[in-house]
Amino acid sequence: MFQENLKRLVSETEGGVAGLLMGFDGIAVDSFSAPNGGIDIQTVGMEFSFICGQVRKAAEILEVGGVQEIAIRCAQLTILIRVISVEYFVALALRPDGNFGKGRYLLRVVAPKLQAEIA
Amino acid sequence: MFQENLKRLVSETEGGVAGLLMGFDGIAVDSFSAPNGGIDIQTVGMEFSFICGQVRKAAEILEVGGVQEIAIRCAQLTILIRVISVEYFVALALRPDGNFGKGRYLLRVVAPKLQAEIA
Repeated sequence: MFQENLKRLVSETEGGVAGLLMGFDGIAVDSFSAPNGGIDIQTVGMEFSFICGQVRKAAEILEVGGVQEIAIRCAQLTILIRVISVEYFVALALRPDGNFGKGRYLLRVVAPKLQAEIA
Repeated sequence: MFQENLKRLVSETEGGVAGLLMGFDGIAVDSFSAPNGGIDIQTVGMEFSFICGQVRKAAEILEVGGVQEIAIRCAQLTILIRVISVEYFVALALRPDGNFGKGRYLLRVVAPKLQAEIA
């Protein structure tokens, strides 16, 4: 059920290596990795679920409204995260030369579908 | 010395409300706020300097190279961060309807200038 959307997210984003649906508690619901992606998306997700939690706390303290998107660009990997509910987020890992804008667009497209499926 | 670049960053980004040069220890070097920006950029920066530190730790653990950019979109504020050295980052706060791409572009333009000034 989640596979279709995660696969679309990864395969339609140039440079996409893995997609992940995860709870803020760091427990993955489902994931999809491109062949030869070369990253362990579950481990990446666990590290970043903690950060997402910290960002949510900061946003609460600062009273700037709910967190919607987080993007982290490292030298060898870019992580795009979209919050889909109080409990879950969807993440896309892409190569640094991947299509950032397309990945962000596709996250927005698949987020409501995943949200509807997980509700 | 830093004011010129921070002011340019904020005033040339549509929806830009404040710019900040800060150490990863949460101590601000300099900042510029647009008139009626309505946010305390120092407080925002302090909260996010902690998060930047956490992101750097995660990137080290995951061996995905140095952190270059972080973007956080909340319902009422977007924060763009660009790392300029091991010690410092520059941040731009903009309204949710602000020009995200232009802000990111200008951060890339001013980052090396600020880096050269602070060295």
